[in-house]
Amino acid sequence: MAVATSPATPAVRVQPGVPFRLSDIDPDATKPFKDKKHAEKRLEELRQQLSDLQENLYAEHRQSLLLVFQAIDTGGKDGAIRKLLTGVNPAGVEVSAFKAPSKEELDHDFLWRIHPHTPSRGHIGVFNRSHYEDVLVTRVHGLIEPTTWQQRYQDIVNFEQLLTRNGTRVLKFFLHISKEEQASRLQARLDDPAKRWKFEPDDLKERKLWDSYQLAFQEALAACSTLDSPWYVVPANHKWARDLAIAEIVVAALTAMNPRPPAANFDVAAQVIE
Amino acid sequence: MAVATSPATPAVRVQPGVPFRLSDIDPDATKPFKDKKHAEKRLEELRQQLSDLQENLYAEHRQSLLLVFQAIDTGGKDGAIRKLLTGVNPAGVEVSAFKAPSKEELDHDFLWRIHPHTPSRGHIGVFNRSHYEDVLVTRVHGLIEPTTWQQRYQDIVNFEQLLTRNGTRVLKFFLHISKEEQASRLQARLDDPAKRWKFEPDDLKERKLWDSYQLAFQEALAACSTLDSPWYVVPANHKWARDLAIAEIVVAALTAMNPRPPAANFDVAAQVIE
Repeated sequence: MAVATSPATPAVRVQPGVPFRLSDIDPDATKPFKDKKHAEKRLEELRQQLSDLQENLYAEHRQSLLLVFQAIDTGGKDGAIRKLLTGVNPAGVEVSAFKAPSKEELDHDFLWRIHPHTPSRGHIGVFNRSHYEDVLVTRVHGLIEPTTWQQRYQDIVNFEQLLTRNGTRVLKFFLHISKEEQASRLQARLDDPAKRWKFEPDDLKERKLWDSYQLAFQEALAACSTLDSPWYVVPANHKWARDLAIAEIVVAALTAMNPRPPAANFDVAAQVIE
Repeated sequence: MAVATSPATPAVRVQPGVPFRLSDIDPDATKPFKDKKHAEKRLEELRQQLSDLQENLYAEHRQSLLLVFQAIDTGGKDGAIRKLLTGVNPAGVEVSAFKAPSKEELDHDFLWRIHPHTPSRGHIGVFNRSHYEDVLVTRVHGLIEPTTWQQRYQDIVNFEQLLTRNGTRVLKFFLHISKEEQASRLQARLDDPAKRWKFEPDDLKERKLWDSYQLAFQEALAACSTLDSPWYVVPANHKWARDLAIAEIVVAALTAMNPRPPAANFDVAAQVIE
């Protein structure tokens, strides 16, 4: 089962441990958002709030926020991250993109290369792909057994609990597009010379595995969405609705964290500047 | 000797190996900039150009840019970084702030903790403080001998040459304020409860060492400004002129790097999306 989010967005929050069907969630959904024009205005407000909240988070130096982005190819991870965070002081943001692991990384457990990139106190960390790749791409390509991905679900939940206990709020976003939308985005990358560098011929091989990927995402999200560290399925065929949904959820979470600059721990009146 | 920069800004570029006097450079300088209103308009244009250039740098995935910021306390490093980069996609920017070294870091050479933070291909790296601290604060506090800082100048020049040879353009900015301006900024931090978290009583002890710091900066800049990796002294009493000077220099350098998205290395016509 998936439940509506608070604040009201087209995104659905995956309920801990309860199976659900990705195919029940419409990638075209935009309600309750009105239209693109309203969305742009609201997004601008939210980005200003986000910028202010981030400054307080940085000054407070006690909590941090980790945003995890996953999607099928062309799902819009890069665009969503850019739309959310352009306008926030980059000194308070750490974006990490996880590509195929190196030989050295493969010689360690799957969280070894992830851990150093978790955000430090006062920072917003962003994962463009993440530790979830190791229950997705490896599974779909038959590199791991069912026992292994079941164990990794546990490892992931435990790891995110560790982060949460240390003051890091973890929010995870799956950008949900339709197979038709992917076709049209791949075609656009091929057609536009300025976008062509984003296209890889291997993307077409991955596309043939669409159904396996959907199943792998669906099970990973159900297994690893917790009360403290939820997964959100964000309908992402319409970029404007996708971006606004994410911004609403992030700003609401940061507002609830209520970051505040610390009080002075010295005698203010005693300070004399010569 | 210091020379005027191209493009024309109030900043001066330190000539390689030639002694100069910091006290000859007016921290109040704003010429040839007209006034704050013009500067804000121009800064907005430059930030848009910077955002576009950064996208191409990222797509090209061949070169990178490292911006080093140093200043006396309250010199405006945080503000200058925020002003320059807010509006650029944080996924293409890596900001590293170097505080007092840890025990483990002190058990290595002084570049050991710096090297992992140099920007990866396609990225803009920003150092808020840097390896230069080890010829500044250590020197002023008498922790190292003249021989040591002279050797470190060489180590730094060699290190930055290594980066340059690997495709990283290195630009270094010293934010130059007057002693009176520091007094007024420290007082503002004390007076404003919202800014008070930025104040440390130890800042006043450091202020007493003002002349020693000026001398240490002056010598380090002269010794480590090279043709490829120049130091700029940026008059920084006026924040608007400081921010515009930096943006002009950074945008000119990135424009000269001329980053371009790579051409497709596959047969575009042969790609069929099913």
